[in-house]
Amino acid sequence: MELKKVEGINFIDGGVCASKGFKANGIHCGLAHKPLTDTEKNSQHSNNAEPAFDNTKKKNDIALILADDICNTVAVYTTNKVKGAPIQVTKNHIQNGKARAVIVNSVNANTCNADGVEKAEKMCSLVAEELGIDENDVVVASTGVIGQILPIEPIANGMKSLCEGLTYDGNARAVEAIMTTDTMPKEIAVEFELCGKKCVMGGMLKGSGMIHPNMATTLTFITTDANISSELLQRALSDVVKVTLNRVSVDGDTSTNDMVCVMASGLCGNKIIDCEDNEFENFRNALYAVMMNLARMMARDGEGATKLIECACVGAGSEKTAETVAKSVITSSLFKTAMFGEDANWGRILCAIGYSDANFDISKIDVNIGSSKGIIAVCREGSGVEFSEEKAKEILQEEEIQIYISLNEGDCSAVAWGCDLTYDYVKINGDYRS
Amino acid sequence: MELKKVEGINFIDGGVCASKGFKANGIHCGLAHKPLTDTEKNSQHSNNAEPAFDNTKKKNDIALILADDICNTVAVYTTNKVKGAPIQVTKNHIQNGKARAVIVNSVNANTCNADGVEKAEKMCSLVAEELGIDENDVVVASTGVIGQILPIEPIANGMKSLCEGLTYDGNARAVEAIMTTDTMPKEIAVEFELCGKKCVMGGMLKGSGMIHPNMATTLTFITTDANISSELLQRALSDVVKVTLNRVSVDGDTSTNDMVCVMASGLCGNKIIDCEDNEFENFRNALYAVMMNLARMMARDGEGATKLIECACVGAGSEKTAETVAKSVITSSLFKTAMFGEDANWGRILCAIGYSDANFDISKIDVNIGSSKGIIAVCREGSGVEFSEEKAKEILQEEEIQIYISLNEGDCSAVAWGCDLTYDYVKINGDYRS
Repeated sequence: MELKKVEGINFIDGGVCASKGFKANGIHCGLAHKPLTDTEKNSQHSNNAEPAFDNTKKKNDIALILADDICNTVAVYTTNKVKGAPIQVTKNHIQNGKARAVIVNSVNANTCNADGVEKAEKMCSLVAEELGIDENDVVVASTGVIGQILPIEPIANGMKSLCEGLTYDGNARAVEAIMTTDTMPKEIAVEFELCGKKCVMGGMLKGSGMIHPNMATTLTFITTDANISSELLQRALSDVVKVTLNRVSVDGDTSTNDMVCVMASGLCGNKIIDCEDNEFENFRNALYAVMMNLARMMARDGEGATKLIECACVGAGSEKTAETVAKSVITSSLFKTAMFGEDANWGRILCAIGYSDANFDISKIDVNIGSSKGIIAVCREGSGVEFSEEKAKEILQEEEIQIYISLNEGDCSAVAWGCDLTYDYVKINGDYRS
Repeated sequence: MELKKVEGINFIDGGVCASKGFKANGIHCGLAHKPLTDTEKNSQHSNNAEPAFDNTKKKNDIALILADDICNTVAVYTTNKVKGAPIQVTKNHIQNGKARAVIVNSVNANTCNADGVEKAEKMCSLVAEELGIDENDVVVASTGVIGQILPIEPIANGMKSLCEGLTYDGNARAVEAIMTTDTMPKEIAVEFELCGKKCVMGGMLKGSGMIHPNMATTLTFITTDANISSELLQRALSDVVKVTLNRVSVDGDTSTNDMVCVMASGLCGNKIIDCEDNEFENFRNALYAVMMNLARMMARDGEGATKLIECACVGAGSEKTAETVAKSVITSSLFKTAMFGEDANWGRILCAIGYSDANFDISKIDVNIGSSKGIIAVCREGSGVEFSEEKAKEILQEEEIQIYISLNEGDCSAVAWGCDLTYDYVKINGDYRS
């Protein structure tokens, strides 16, 4: 899919390694995907075989990012009351606003396990020992199946190789390691200017299910060589997450392990950003370009998705109203299946607007549906208007669909991103653990 | 599926016609399902053909219930801000707490149309003229596609035959007429006692998509020959809908046309119920038996569903908490697909509990999964416990699954009903209008 341009920002290659001072690596250490059945266990016992680590699936399953020196580091987390053990450990480790490394595994979420915190801390200490750094400077994250004991042995066994393989261009290996049901790696890097200095920011993200962010989403790791205080870095992240990742929904399920973590090395040499001046605006703009495009990639690659749906609500009395309306539409199962069927069943858009918890006058609402093939009016002042079903079909056959809703009441607007609901979503999730 | 027993209540046959004094009928009048494409329109124009009413689909599409005399009548309606035109008309007609007849069509929801109210009123006047009753005593409801002009001609043309065919055992023809994507008719009737008199109550309901009730749900029509004031009838309905239909979700979409309407003929001869005494309790109990079983039928026949999921949350600090938790679980797309896949992925239950807007202590939560094949513990004190995957599979292969959640914090509980999310849900909704 095409990246969406933001003024003053240039796209470059390199993902999280594009920023000065960051190495990365990813390897396959062999975390297993599902507990064995009793029969399998018995057959293993009788064979005296090793425990259940499936080494046949060779996708990378553990990633490491290492900064050359300590970085100002901040994060935002899921609002789910069930929180993954790694989140608790990471919160402790970066309460001083500093970190040096990020360790993250896929396959197993290390959540709802009695020994979860212990295992998450062990992951940090294994990294710290191998690299000779402080374990309190390590961020830890996990994603995968909830409620299965995390086997630490494959991680311990792989740690030496994971650390030895760290390079300044290892981003592709790292991004592969954080994928679960993702069908494509999701990374981005941008160049921008701060005080006349060229700065870089790069990020990687994983989807693709249990995506309905609330204060954060999914696992996202961003590096930058800009020089910015932890306080202002946190402010920029909290601002930008609200209008990017928090406006994506794949399936309405807010994950237990969501985390967005940003590390700033300061190596680009700009005067430190420590107040909300123009340079802060420039930095936040770059962060927006990175996170908005990662958000779009996540929606497009939602589990089973064939289409990216972008819903813009304009003319709202408040930004909150516009956001509520746009998110209600992209979250509706009935609307999502209609998009999969390429059926201009706009009544489902009105229905989803109607049950959203927002204030507006139904009789003023206009709705248009568009894509690169054109745009058609389907609803004016709350009632249907005649349109060509053939033209609608042509528009909806595209991979990026835009829904434009005008409430005709004010000047506020918001955009939300989602995807269609398909047979493959059901297939992927009908037996995720196997 | 089996009906669920309620003490003091006997199940009988006859649906809405089981109560004394109610006739019903349903016919196929020929409402079309989808607007013609431009090509189809052109070919019609050139042939001077009739407008697009598809007479090949012979399922009944219009139903009528007629009481022998005026009845105390009350209703509850959807909270969706986009409200079907029939709802506005019905609200006007029964604001005096009285009605004589119900006219309802499927195929077209008569919603988001500039002439919707006019058409809904026309449906009432057609009934009134044919039967020689007051049009203000007619309840009107519609269900089907939103935002397509309702053609009144087939309804006008069919009205004579619809009225002439009214009989005291016409319930089966009526219930067929209100079905849309329902795969089976949903009706029930019960006998119970009031002041030593045998009373009867019967109901019919339609599903099966856009089901996420809020203050009412779907179209449900209930008759009774009990003698009860409109005020107390409304109170009973408002109480019971909260713990029955409002606790069902098929797809999270709250419809624009939901309505539950109850008519009481008074013909069973009990002393009128006009205060909250024991007889009121007995009446409400019968209404609960009717609506709880209709709710279960609706969930079991949710679009594409292969299983009924019953989620009971106990040990909550408040009923609201228990309800919020139970509804969050049965609404989760990830949980629903796991049930379709017969996969005991209980982490998704914990995840859905965690993002529900309720208060509890995660570390106290126990979860069991059961069916007629047995019951297993999957989670204790917020962490996973070992269980047999084979036993879990055996349990989940059944058509009725129970999820038991204990918050271990108080004495309140609630039950919610849902269904699995399947390929067929996507299929049915990918091109609903065709």
